[in-house]
Amino acid sequence: MMYGKGEERDLEIEGINLGHDGKDERLERDRSSSWFVDEKDSLREPLLSKNNRINNTSQLAIVGANVCPIESLDYEINENDLFKQDWRSRTKVEICQYMAIKWILALIIGLSTGLVGFCNNIAVENVAGFKLLLTNNLMQKQRYHLAFAALAAGNMILGIAAAALCAYIAPAAAGSGIPEVKAYLNGVDAHSILAPSTLFVKIFGSIFGVSAGLVVGKEGPMVHTGACIANLLGQGGSRKYHLTCKWLRFFKNDRDRRDLITCGAAAGVAAAFRAPVGGVLFALEEAASWWRSALLWRTFFTTAVVAVVLRGFMEFCRAGRCGLFGEGGLIMFAVNSSRPIYGTPDLLVVIFLGVIGGLLGSLYNFLIKKVVRTYSVINEEGPMRKLLLVLAVTFLTSCCSFGLPWISQCIPCPASAGDRCPTVGRYGHYKSFQCPPNHYNDLASLFFTTNDDAIRNLFISGNDKKFQLSSLLIFFVAMYFLGIVTYGIAVPSGLFIPVILAGASYGRLAGRLLSSITVLDVGLFGLLGAASFLGGTMRMTVSICIILLELTNDLLMLPLVMLVLLISKSVADCFNNGVYDQIMRLKGLPYLEAHPEPYMRQLIASDVVSGPLFTFSGVEKVKNIMCALRGTGHNGFPVLDEPPLTDAPELCGLVLRSHLLVLLKNRRFFKQKGMNSSAIMRNFKAYDFMKPGSGKGLKLEDLEINEDEMEMFVDLHPITNTSPYTVVETMSLAKAAILFRELGLRHLLVVPQTTGRHPVVGILTRHDFMPEHVLGLYPHLNPHKQRE
Amino acid sequence: MMYGKGEERDLEIEGINLGHDGKDERLERDRSSSWFVDEKDSLREPLLSKNNRINNTSQLAIVGANVCPIESLDYEINENDLFKQDWRSRTKVEICQYMAIKWILALIIGLSTGLVGFCNNIAVENVAGFKLLLTNNLMQKQRYHLAFAALAAGNMILGIAAAALCAYIAPAAAGSGIPEVKAYLNGVDAHSILAPSTLFVKIFGSIFGVSAGLVVGKEGPMVHTGACIANLLGQGGSRKYHLTCKWLRFFKNDRDRRDLITCGAAAGVAAAFRAPVGGVLFALEEAASWWRSALLWRTFFTTAVVAVVLRGFMEFCRAGRCGLFGEGGLIMFAVNSSRPIYGTPDLLVVIFLGVIGGLLGSLYNFLIKKVVRTYSVINEEGPMRKLLLVLAVTFLTSCCSFGLPWISQCIPCPASAGDRCPTVGRYGHYKSFQCPPNHYNDLASLFFTTNDDAIRNLFISGNDKKFQLSSLLIFFVAMYFLGIVTYGIAVPSGLFIPVILAGASYGRLAGRLLSSITVLDVGLFGLLGAASFLGGTMRMTVSICIILLELTNDLLMLPLVMLVLLISKSVADCFNNGVYDQIMRLKGLPYLEAHPEPYMRQLIASDVVSGPLFTFSGVEKVKNIMCALRGTGHNGFPVLDEPPLTDAPELCGLVLRSHLLVLLKNRRFFKQKGMNSSAIMRNFKAYDFMKPGSGKGLKLEDLEINEDEMEMFVDLHPITNTSPYTVVETMSLAKAAILFRELGLRHLLVVPQTTGRHPVVGILTRHDFMPEHVLGLYPHLNPHKQRE
Repeated sequence: MMYGKGEERDLEIEGINLGHDGKDERLERDRSSSWFVDEKDSLREPLLSKNNRINNTSQLAIVGANVCPIESLDYEINENDLFKQDWRSRTKVEICQYMAIKWILALIIGLSTGLVGFCNNIAVENVAGFKLLLTNNLMQKQRYHLAFAALAAGNMILGIAAAALCAYIAPAAAGSGIPEVKAYLNGVDAHSILAPSTLFVKIFGSIFGVSAGLVVGKEGPMVHTGACIANLLGQGGSRKYHLTCKWLRFFKNDRDRRDLITCGAAAGVAAAFRAPVGGVLFALEEAASWWRSALLWRTFFTTAVVAVVLRGFMEFCRAGRCGLFGEGGLIMFAVNSSRPIYGTPDLLVVIFLGVIGGLLGSLYNFLIKKVVRTYSVINEEGPMRKLLLVLAVTFLTSCCSFGLPWISQCIPCPASAGDRCPTVGRYGHYKSFQCPPNHYNDLASLFFTTNDDAIRNLFISGNDKKFQLSSLLIFFVAMYFLGIVTYGIAVPSGLFIPVILAGASYGRLAGRLLSSITVLDVGLFGLLGAASFLGGTMRMTVSICIILLELTNDLLMLPLVMLVLLISKSVADCFNNGVYDQIMRLKGLPYLEAHPEPYMRQLIASDVVSGPLFTFSGVEKVKNIMCALRGTGHNGFPVLDEPPLTDAPELCGLVLRSHLLVLLKNRRFFKQKGMNSSAIMRNFKAYDFMKPGSGKGLKLEDLEINEDEMEMFVDLHPITNTSPYTVVETMSLAKAAILFRELGLRHLLVVPQTTGRHPVVGILTRHDFMPEHVLGLYPHLNPHKQRE
Repeated sequence: MMYGKGEERDLEIEGINLGHDGKDERLERDRSSSWFVDEKDSLREPLLSKNNRINNTSQLAIVGANVCPIESLDYEINENDLFKQDWRSRTKVEICQYMAIKWILALIIGLSTGLVGFCNNIAVENVAGFKLLLTNNLMQKQRYHLAFAALAAGNMILGIAAAALCAYIAPAAAGSGIPEVKAYLNGVDAHSILAPSTLFVKIFGSIFGVSAGLVVGKEGPMVHTGACIANLLGQGGSRKYHLTCKWLRFFKNDRDRRDLITCGAAAGVAAAFRAPVGGVLFALEEAASWWRSALLWRTFFTTAVVAVVLRGFMEFCRAGRCGLFGEGGLIMFAVNSSRPIYGTPDLLVVIFLGVIGGLLGSLYNFLIKKVVRTYSVINEEGPMRKLLLVLAVTFLTSCCSFGLPWISQCIPCPASAGDRCPTVGRYGHYKSFQCPPNHYNDLASLFFTTNDDAIRNLFISGNDKKFQLSSLLIFFVAMYFLGIVTYGIAVPSGLFIPVILAGASYGRLAGRLLSSITVLDVGLFGLLGAASFLGGTMRMTVSICIILLELTNDLLMLPLVMLVLLISKSVADCFNNGVYDQIMRLKGLPYLEAHPEPYMRQLIASDVVSGPLFTFSGVEKVKNIMCALRGTGHNGFPVLDEPPLTDAPELCGLVLRSHLLVLLKNRRFFKQKGMNSSAIMRNFKAYDFMKPGSGKGLKLEDLEINEDEMEMFVDLHPITNTSPYTVVETMSLAKAAILFRELGLRHLLVVPQTTGRHPVVGILTRHDFMPEHVLGLYPHLNPHKQRE
């Protein structure tokens, strides 16, 4: 039984749909709510034809809109008999297996993310270190042009390598990756986002990109890498390479996969910052949309494993077995400011720092959005344009890092520095650059090094004359704008390091300027400045605080860091959203917010239900099913029991497209219209219906059904979810949205309030709760706080 | 319209209900599901008469069962017109007010909890310090009997004071308080739990109890104190003392109150351990049942304020202005073990430590349960018995702390200690006790001091011969059992400190015994032992880990602490539940678990619905309402629109008892049966229906309605929640439970699947999801993993 044959599909497949013909929404509303009252009418005239469906995301969704078909994930359990054979009702051995695998997988994720993180560090330190040493040598021989040529060439080769990987192999690997992981954990499954190719490109692209001296971090990419690793494991191995494992079959469902990916994201942060607790809190505060206590524990275990792995490798490398990788390869700053004692003026200074940091942070977000939009236009024009853009940015960065230090004057070495000035080799913060002997160039110590080392230099405490005011200002401005123009090019680029670089130089600068009224150390000011920028751009609080504390290993600064974070976040929140939310919107990912928008309280569920609705009979003709599957992209169909079986049409449940495909593939059809559940159930095990890995499921084209079979019947009862969540049509849309979001649903059935009508009014999907959709239908609802 | 007049009430009022007559559950099930099919039959014969309702909690609910009428809390928003005037649709000024108050309240909670925590510390240090100094002086004069008499008398007076406060003023203040807070945040509102009297007794009882030398902590009480303070603020001031504030009216709802109390609980932990991040994680992992990202931020702010307050006071006291309160008054241990380097044997030792710690921890829980049960029998017999019990335990503790050190041999002072041995005054770990000059008694250094100092001594690194093996063993055994016999007596008694004491001595003992195969420091072993015991009893992981790290201010030990916690928790989980869960069950608090029990998947919603059901018409006779309110304890009644108004009976919504009382109090009745919503709505503002503070709402006895009015009609539409959450009767009980729990509901309407029947099958409340209730109805459902 089908109502209409519109081209309409639900969001999961179609993703983004351009176009808006401005039809009268009031009319639509009336019709939509009277859908089943006047059934015939609506059959003749599809209510919401394709062009009529409004999706304002589309106008924003410039980046990546065409790459990813978006699929929505589902937390709901099917309570049907066939699916009830879940692990709880299995044997004790199977339960133990399941529990054991969970932990083993967490262990493996931790181990491999730790390993990847460490290799990333070794590779970057060696490649970038070699490049810098070479240039340094040429500089000391005063062959400045050659030095610049070597630096620029090295950077551009590395940059091109990173860009080529991104442009040709996995375009999804460009950018931070955190918005994508966040969207996935919210229930948006865009296939290529966590694919193996993305993993590969993310790892190597990040190494090349960071080594190229670009102002990019490896933290976002590490989070993405961790999530990709977790996703690979959660797919149950690769069937292609015969790596599938029987035990992993338990994990063929959305819930377990999402748990794994949460662990992976946490492991990524833990590996990037060597901050296990920070990783857990990051996953909790920023990444995950649903959280369970059990997950806290498992995530914590994963990050602990990462910490142990990193520690082990660092012990191994301490003896100098890792080339240029020294002790400090993993960023671990030392702000040894003893016990900071502070009074009211210091607090006022810190508050001031936070306010300005918040303002600059929100400006950063604003500029990033503009830049990303501009870049996306360029990037859309093909891989070559992407390469050129990367080349341009790399060249600009090289010019800055080589050219700007010439502005700075040479400073005589302080007596206390002794042999350490000027620096020999890679480390140390007294780079000689062009200076005569016994002098150093402070700006070169910041520019002419890796990002990690620059941050370490900015956090060094004491000796507040080490950097000149002008040098700090130049470095701050350069980093602020280089960070902005670098994000959005086709390399894996984390945002943490650019923001910390700009923030730390801002903080140190502020500390120097305000040194007359505060007793706080300039190194501590660097840390607070970084915190204020992080709070102003990312809008996380607890996790950033913990990450910074774990980096500096000093809990005594906690209150100050907290204060600065709270202030900068509050200030920045007045202007725009967090940077990851902005990017997610730019990418057009349909993220479901935790709270419904206020104007949704003025609508009821049936107001936003969009038709036409396809329903099946409990025992349905194969032809009808094939028709519906071919004609629509719907992922869920209500199943009704109808008069021959019951007195009146009655809602039986919901059947999923993927399950229908498995059922049809089996071809157990019957000539007569009748219940044959038992016969069907004998042919299947619950495993058959488990969710396959992304992109590996059955497709409609895989089915071979001949004309005779088309006329036969199939009993849908065994695969029907007989306990779908429902709302009454008069339910407030806001409350329906809470239900949908809190329970992590994919389909929500709307049932009529009055009896005697058709038992289903419609289906609500993720799309129907999107502000763009709702406001498209009812533009007169003026949202209170709609930020652009 | 009412179906029957049984004595049945729902859980919110009745709380615990003894008795089980073992009626045929099969029969009941059939009836229950056919309730509305055969309506007449059921009217004649109430399905579940009072004795028929089974609540197995009752058998366990010995402690406190009679003190608290339990009320359930509600997160649900009423989307009705009258209630839609919430803050979102208010003026901008009001929204700003609301936001500002939120933060101001968080600030106040932080300030006051920090203040209370600090005063607690000062008081304890001064009282206990004075007592110990006095005894010490007498000891040095070799007047041993007098010293013991002074110690015992002092302890017993303090103990009696604490017990008297608990027994006569606020019995709810006895014990840890964490289980109660946890239950409150789960939605169980037992009135006296967070009352001002409880707050008063908790603060002073805790000071007296800890000063009395009892093996109790101040951490649990601090959490409870924080929650009480938050609750007081959330009540909107006290109307009695004219302290009510207009601005606080926004907070007269369950959601905001629960948020405040979460902040309060976090502030308590932060104040007790000076661990702001630990406090946040504690609230997240252990206390809260629902969590929102916004809450993370606010909680963090509160704990940061606590940290700042504590820091400020400690600066103030550093100059010696706080009597005997020294620098280390707030526990802040120093395990200065530099950078611990460890290999495989060390890891094996740590794993071993974790396993044994887990076993001992679960044994601790088991014994505590037995002891609490025994004590509760004694405590039930009246306040005098409570006092005697406290007296006995105090005397036993005094005997142990004075008597056991005599067993230990005197040790000559090490040369390195210099002047510090033997200790003069309160601090230091070389107590002379009965020893000759230049000797010290190591056991006295542990027993003859405050609990905080004993822990600090156990965590001291290096010098691993400082404590003899026999001394550590004696101390461990004494603390293990004293901790167990002390919990459950009528004083505010935290569990953290006893567990840390036992765990640290166990760890140090193990470190000494295993010193041949490990290079780890004995102080570090003390810390790991404490971690293993905490993991084994409390079953928290991340929060304990962070609290320990904040106490010791050394993040480098993180991996080892994590490992030990994970192992001990996993081991202990095989045997029983966490200690707070056990106590909560003993107290009979209907805690709703995050996951439904597996056997619930075999039931459907209508299986557990218990009748009789009272429903009202949209326009109902006053008499009928009064009848229903008097005759039942139900808190929610479905409202139906019936034939004169609609074609067929139709569900209109749900009306709450408290709202009905407000409506009836207003006495806007009508002679004719008709809709008069507008007339009614003019008389009310949304504030009138806001939830008053606990115990302050209107009562049925407050209504004065005469005979004439009884025959009149009242329109319930304006106060009806027209969007109640509903489930279809065939919905799996497990999925209904998930809905109920995730959305924090109080009532869940069950609607029929087939059309043409009565529009409401029944109401599910918290009670109906309790395992005891479900298993009482269907004892044949053998739960997989039901721990006692």
